[in-house]
Order: sequence, then structure tokens, then C-alpha cells
Amino acid sequence: MDIVNGVLSGSRLALSRAITAVENEYDEAVEIMQKLYLHTGRAYVIGITGPPGAGKSTLTDKIAKDFRRQGKKVGIVAVDPTSPYSGGAILGDRIRMNELTEDEGVFIRSMATRGSLGGLSQKTAEVVKLMDAFGADVIIIETVGVGQSEVDIVKTADTTMVVLVPGLGDDIQAIKAGILEIGDIFTINKADREGIDRLNIEIEMMLELNPKEVNWRPPINRTIASKGEGIKDLMETIANHQQFLNESGELEVRRVERLKTELLAMINDQIGRYVVNKLTKSGEFDTMVNSIQQRERDPYSVVKSILASVLR
Amino acid sequence: MDIVNGVLSGSRLALSRAITAVENEYDEAVEIMQKLYLHTGRAYVIGITGPPGAGKSTLTDKIAKDFRRQGKKVGIVAVDPTSPYSGGAILGDRIRMNELTEDEGVFIRSMATRGSLGGLSQKTAEVVKLMDAFGADVIIIETVGVGQSEVDIVKTADTTMVVLVPGLGDDIQAIKAGILEIGDIFTINKADREGIDRLNIEIEMMLELNPKEVNWRPPINRTIASKGEGIKDLMETIANHQQFLNESGELEVRRVERLKTELLAMINDQIGRYVVNKLTKSGEFDTMVNSIQQRERDPYSVVKSILASVLR
Repeated sequence: MDIVNGVLSGSRLALSRAITAVENEYDEAVEIMQKLYLHTGRAYVIGITGPPGAGKSTLTDKIAKDFRRQGKKVGIVAVDPTSPYSGGAILGDRIRMNELTEDEGVFIRSMATRGSLGGLSQKTAEVVKLMDAFGADVIIIETVGVGQSEVDIVKTADTTMVVLVPGLGDDIQAIKAGILEIGDIFTINKADREGIDRLNIEIEMMLELNPKEVNWRPPINRTIASKGEGIKDLMETIANHQQFLNESGELEVRRVERLKTELLAMINDQIGRYVVNKLTKSGEFDTMVNSIQQRERDPYSVVKSILASVLR
Repeated sequence: MDIVNGVLSGSRLALSRAITAVENEYDEAVEIMQKLYLHTGRAYVIGITGPPGAGKSTLTDKIAKDFRRQGKKVGIVAVDPTSPYSGGAILGDRIRMNELTEDEGVFIRSMATRGSLGGLSQKTAEVVKLMDAFGADVIIIETVGVGQSEVDIVKTADTTMVVLVPGLGDDIQAIKAGILEIGDIFTINKADREGIDRLNIEIEMMLELNPKEVNWRPPINRTIASKGEGIKDLMETIANHQQFLNESGELEVRRVERLKTELLAMINDQIGRYVVNKLTKSGEFDTMVNSIQQRERDPYSVVKSILASVLR
């Protein structure tokens, strides 16, 4: 089977194989991505992030089902070790999620987060493009919102939703601060818990302190995802943001920015690999490491001479 | 004042300026690092990581004070937005920490974690080297243990201590799993809380499943850091691990591995910058982004031609 044509004609098996090729960096991955790239840019991408236990997977489930009712083809990328899609979370979650996995209009893929040598955000972006070329109308990226890598992952999205819950305590403040800046939409989930008003005020205050440059004030929704409460309003908020992105030209602006970031990452990645491969093959790398370790040379001048030797 | 000689003669002001130069990537930073590198490699580096609220700062405080009682010069790098050193945590913590900041034998520096465009682990490694050249006998890196970037940061350490607390619930499992593999020593802090035995068993089980290759079984300590309980045993465990690293040759093995990783990161970073600067200056970069955005070209072939044009 030709993977490229398979993906373009909507074959789930072909998409699955293409993702595996990208994840494992098989030789054919670059060719696949290269050919499919010209068929991307159509899907609307939503990033869902927040601390562990915020109910991101349950929200993803509800949102995906709502898009399905609208007749839309949905892709889900779970970059979240606590996600039931990735084998985490409790059994009940995983059973509930099976309804989605049995729907032909939904394609779910979880990404390995452990043991990854960086590059996870780049791979996530490529999986999103594959699902886009496959014909997904909406792609949801679910990622646990802590740490720089996770923030990088969420930057792949057109709309970023930050999910918080009341009562996680002061310790979680830092996590909130780190992801507050990237939220286009906020959702306070488990809204029947105590402390919801306080959390709402906290978010409002942080938004006042860090206003987004563009003409969009991030709305704060309240949901109880497990009971389906607040989902209708949330879907409206999502639709509003999508409309805003389109009408303001912000969608184009963001996508160009994102493309620049991706391009830089690709240049860095590939040029670095080339140089290291070259040095490793010739045995130079080990010699250099050795002389630095013995404090005969310093790493900064070594890198300088490496650059001089490989660059035009 | 000459910064390099200042750091080498133990001037706190010089060290402070050198760190600022590295953090902000001032022009003189490379020269400083280059000259000081040959005077590094003497300090013993401990990484302390764990979820928010585990009590890492309080443990850092107790451990630092114990090393001080042994007459050792201590450096502390806080890469943790919840650390009192970084302005996080509650007021009481920050007041208590002031005892350390008033001690001439302790140098504390917090690293900005927000808005950092990656490279944080590289900068942390450089700050550690500066403190090393400054004459610190022991350097403690305190970092919140969630996400790949934080794991990368902790790889700078000779000994990694993972701090956990009972009763954080199932949601925290993923975080635990992600950092379990890097722990040389485990500490269950707040050991007067319920659930300590269960947590102990969980850690034991995970250690059984993922045995470390080297001949060291990570011990599990119990502490109540706020009351100073268990610190003596913990210090013994740390001393044991340091001894193990020295006698087994593992210290050298780890440091060579770390040097390789650092060297690769430096090559990637600098070569990428060079290329991007060159393309940006000539206006080529924007032209490329534009043609990709219009789907006239794909990013993969663009990157390929960039590489061909800059590499020998």
C-alpha cells in the first residue's frame, strides 16, 4: 500500500503507519511528510492542557463527541501520560473512552512521552499534519500542562484551552502561572467543588496582569465534564474563538509564527545531526570529549573549531 | 573588576555578575565560561526534584545547613518556580531561607523558568560550572520534577534525589513514573502523613520493574524536613552515594556522558543560530516562510536546500 495516497484517501491503516514512521524516524518519514505537506492547513487544531487531575481527558471526550454530532471528522493526539488514551488514568476513564475509539469518524493516537529525547513537540506537530492530510476537520491535542516541553507542544494549536480545577492548593500556582499566558479559553472543570469563585478571581487577576496583545479576552467557562454540564456553552466559546481567529486574520498570523518556529527547529535538528554524525564517524567526537574531560581544552573553543570546519 | 579572576578568588560579586552574563547571554559570557572551564570538575553536584508541594526547598535548606556544619562551601541553584528562593512558596518559607542567604559560605541563585526559550538546562549547567570554579564544594540544584525540561536539568547532577510525599493521589502517578527512573536516592518527605507505607511499596515496585543498570539500589529515606527528622540518615545516604560514585568509577562515566550531551546541545544551538542569522539578514528566511505558507514549497525540501547551501 502506498502510504501517502492511503492517508490522502482517508485510510486509517495508512495514517497509522505514517504516524509510526514519523514517531520512530523511519527513513521514509521525511518523504511522507514532504508529499503530504501540500495537503495540510485545512484542519482546526485545539490544544487542551492543564495540571494532572483537571479532567482534560473527560473534556476531550465530550468535545470530540460534540464535534462528531456536527458531522465533523475528529483527530485526537494524546501527549499526556495521565490520559486514558495513553494507558494512564483509571479503568473507568479508559472504558468510557472506548466509545470514541469505536467511532470510525475519530482517529486517536497517543504519543510516548517517556524516554523521548526531546523533539516531542516537533513530532506532535507532524502527527497533527498527518491527521490534517488524512481529512480530520478538527484535531484535539491533549497534553498535561506542566513544564516547557508541554507548553511547546500546545503551541501547535490554533486555539489553546487551559483546564483548571478548584482546590488544588497554592502549590499548583506556579503551574497555573506558566500556562495562563497561553490560554485562549479557560475552563474551570469540576465546578461543583469548593473554591471555584476564588479560582475564577485568581484567573481574572492574572489575565488583568498579563493582557493578551490581540483583541480577544480569554473567557472563563465552568464545566462538570463528567456529567456533561457546561459543555454546550464551552462549544460555543470554542466556535467564537475559531470565528475570531478567522475574521481578525489572527489565524494566519499565528500559523506563520508557528511555521517559523517549526522551520528553525528543523534546521537546528538536522544540521546538528549532520555535524554529529560526521564527527562520530571520523572518531573526532570521542577525541574531543576526552581532551575536554582532561581539561586540556574547553568545550567552547572546541565547538567553535567544529563550526569553522563544517560551515562554508 | 576582572570577572574571571574574581570568580576564581571567591568573590561573590564576580560570581553574581558572571551568572547574570550567562543568563542574559551577554557577549562576554562565552569568554568567561571558556576561561573558567579549566577550573571546574571539583564540586559534587546534587539534584533535588519532585512534585510541587513535596517540600524540596525545606529539604534543600536542611541539607545545605548540614554541609555547612561540615565546613563545606555550598552553592544552590533554584530552577523551581515554587521555591522560596525564586520568590514562590509561602512567606514563612522565605523567611526561614534567609538564614541561609545571610551565610557567607552559601551562594544561592534562582533561575528564571518563565519565558525561557528552552536552553534552560544548558544555562543551569553553566551556572553550576561557575559555582564550581568559584570554589563551592557542594552544589544543590532544586527543580520541580515535572516535564522533560526539568528531567534534563537534573541530569546535570552527580546524585539525583527524588522527593515524594504520601497522599498526592493517583493523578500524580505519571509524574512519579517520569522521575522515578532518574532517582539515585528517594526521600518520602512529610513522613507523618497517612499513606507512607503504600507510597513506599509503590516506589519499591517501580524500582523492581525498572532496575538501574549500575550496582546501586536506590535507597528510600523517610524525612519530616520541617522538623529536621530523618536528615541525619539522609545525609548518610548521600555520603554513601557519593562514595559509591567515586569508588565504582561511575562518577567519571556519568560526567563523560553529560559532557557529550552538553557538547551536542552546544553544537546544535550555535550552528542553528549561525544559519538562522545568516538567512534572516539576507531576507531569505521570510521568502521561504512565505512560499511554504502558500503551499508552493514544503518545509522539508526547503530545509534540505538550506543545509546544502551552508555546509561544506
